[in-house]
Amino acid sequence: MSQRQPQQLVPGMQPAVLTMDSLLRAAEQTVPQGAGEASKFRYRAAYQGVPGAYSEMAACKACPDAEPVPCEQFEVAFQALSQWTTDWAVLPIENSLGGSIHAVYDLLLRYRLHIVGETSIAVNHCLLALPGTKLSDLTRVLSHPQALAQTDTYLRKLGVVKEAVDDTAGAAQMVARQQLQGVGAVASRRAAELYGLDILDEDIQDAKDNVTRFIKLARDPLLSREGEGEATPFKTSIVFSLKEGPGQLFKALSVFALRDIDMTKIESRPMRTNPIVLTKPEGAAQAGKQRFNYLFYIDFVGALSDPVCQNALRHLQESAPFMRVLGSYPMELQLGGLDSNTPFDSINEH
Amino acid sequence: MSQRQPQQLVPGMQPAVLTMDSLLRAAEQTVPQGAGEASKFRYRAAYQGVPGAYSEMAACKACPDAEPVPCEQFEVAFQALSQWTTDWAVLPIENSLGGSIHAVYDLLLRYRLHIVGETSIAVNHCLLALPGTKLSDLTRVLSHPQALAQTDTYLRKLGVVKEAVDDTAGAAQMVARQQLQGVGAVASRRAAELYGLDILDEDIQDAKDNVTRFIKLARDPLLSREGEGEATPFKTSIVFSLKEGPGQLFKALSVFALRDIDMTKIESRPMRTNPIVLTKPEGAAQAGKQRFNYLFYIDFVGALSDPVCQNALRHLQESAPFMRVLGSYPMELQLGGLDSNTPFDSINEH
Repeated sequence: MSQRQPQQLVPGMQPAVLTMDSLLRAAEQTVPQGAGEASKFRYRAAYQGVPGAYSEMAACKACPDAEPVPCEQFEVAFQALSQWTTDWAVLPIENSLGGSIHAVYDLLLRYRLHIVGETSIAVNHCLLALPGTKLSDLTRVLSHPQALAQTDTYLRKLGVVKEAVDDTAGAAQMVARQQLQGVGAVASRRAAELYGLDILDEDIQDAKDNVTRFIKLARDPLLSREGEGEATPFKTSIVFSLKEGPGQLFKALSVFALRDIDMTKIESRPMRTNPIVLTKPEGAAQAGKQRFNYLFYIDFVGALSDPVCQNALRHLQESAPFMRVLGSYPMELQLGGLDSNTPFDSINEH
Repeated sequence: MSQRQPQQLVPGMQPAVLTMDSLLRAAEQTVPQGAGEASKFRYRAAYQGVPGAYSEMAACKACPDAEPVPCEQFEVAFQALSQWTTDWAVLPIENSLGGSIHAVYDLLLRYRLHIVGETSIAVNHCLLALPGTKLSDLTRVLSHPQALAQTDTYLRKLGVVKEAVDDTAGAAQMVARQQLQGVGAVASRRAAELYGLDILDEDIQDAKDNVTRFIKLARDPLLSREGEGEATPFKTSIVFSLKEGPGQLFKALSVFALRDIDMTKIESRPMRTNPIVLTKPEGAAQAGKQRFNYLFYIDFVGALSDPVCQNALRHLQESAPFMRVLGSYPMELQLGGLDSNTPFDSINEH
């Protein structure tokens, strides 16, 4: 976890959030424009959301020497990085309750950026309020509808009115800015620190296993030296499609199994009607499009510098009409692969 | 699609939404209580949300002869069905943009219910307002934050203030109930019909491939006769874990590949800390729990009555310490399996 203390914002003050419009304006000027004033940070990392968001925590954890730059949407973060407005972008890719975030996978295919790292953030919803507020004082609680849903049991016991707002950190900001008495916000611990609120309670979500995995993107791929993946385990993320015919997926997976390459993620995604923008060749005005019935997302343990992994991908390409390496990067957790399962003894609920 | 006309609700009137509390109250009474008054329907189908929600459309499509019963949360729908308050429950299981809905998979493992059907709903966001309103009259637009995000480009061009509320159908209801002039709601076509609003525009979302797949649950499994799966293609959904060791997933998939059984979905889910409640044996006060590093979700083409499928599952059980059949049911779409990919010629964006 990042150890640095977040800077506390004066209520009513916050760094400008990047939007598509502000990016376009910046592109018209000769000197790239930042989101805020002169920064003490050498680097900048785009994330989706406002200060105090879980995505901001992930950006700070993944890029400890970078100023987190809030972006209004996922795509603005991709654009900010593509247009040299930031050095990295940190985006959620899957959540333990919500699943894979396909919108981010779609953007990964549309933009030529590279995954250079990963980080996971445990969602720890806190109940925040103005300093001095007691739990019994609360009559209303604000948050994003998903956060309200995830803390439903707790809030029900409290007997408060739930009010939905745009995001968790925005709820904390609203309570602080408008000095709302008797109003709570469900948000992160960092939001409490940023907006000067008290933490009345924490870890108030129903499901305790609420973890979001984020990817760190850069304009250039991370080049690992041969053998580096052995000391620091690397993970490689790919997307591919398959030809028609029975057993194609089985054959595709055999390129990893036959080389004892362990997978940490496999997912099929039905594609229905939406074409994939494949590539935008240099000089071409438009990108080519192609349709597939299914895309497959696979993460496997291994670095691209490893000749065994290179051979596996070469082997996979023989049968996959479309394949893209999204990135090869150091693994954050020693979770092991899909095949290393550690069954625990049955335990009883108490 | 269901052809029946939705009953238009008087603004301010709506069927009671089932909550955990109302289910407990119902359980205390001898005659199971319904959500509304005497119904013309013989059957009832629980869904999560309020009338006009996309989930309600799915419930009507999957259970055309059932009264849709709104439930406050996913789990209330599971309970309503388990406690004989409804005959079916229809729940979202995956979305083309958001991915698999793991919270519903979790409930499938905790409740002993069975998938007996599936249906897909294309999310078609409409812009609704009071009758007679013109697009240029709108100054504010209400909806669920996700719907507002999905229609961001459109709403930006319109230059309106976006306001987040609990759900899409609730936004439509609010505009109708409070007779809000100059206020729009992003919601379904059905919400417009239910609450007597005009549809100013439709299909206003950025991504056109926004499809949600729903499952239809029943207390008893659907029993298919041998050979039935050949005329009407059946799909079977399973969840399993694997033992530790390299190549286990490859071996697991071989039980399908070696029998030419086609898969339509495969997904790995890292489990981290959350134990799975496996079973609640008859007479036992508590269910047993077990932890796994990964769970695998697979849908394959085939009916449980087919001896080949039975053999495949028996074969899989040899190596899987945990396996559950979630259901075997008629396939809605002739999408083909994971292995039947139809690449189209490259087309250029215009």
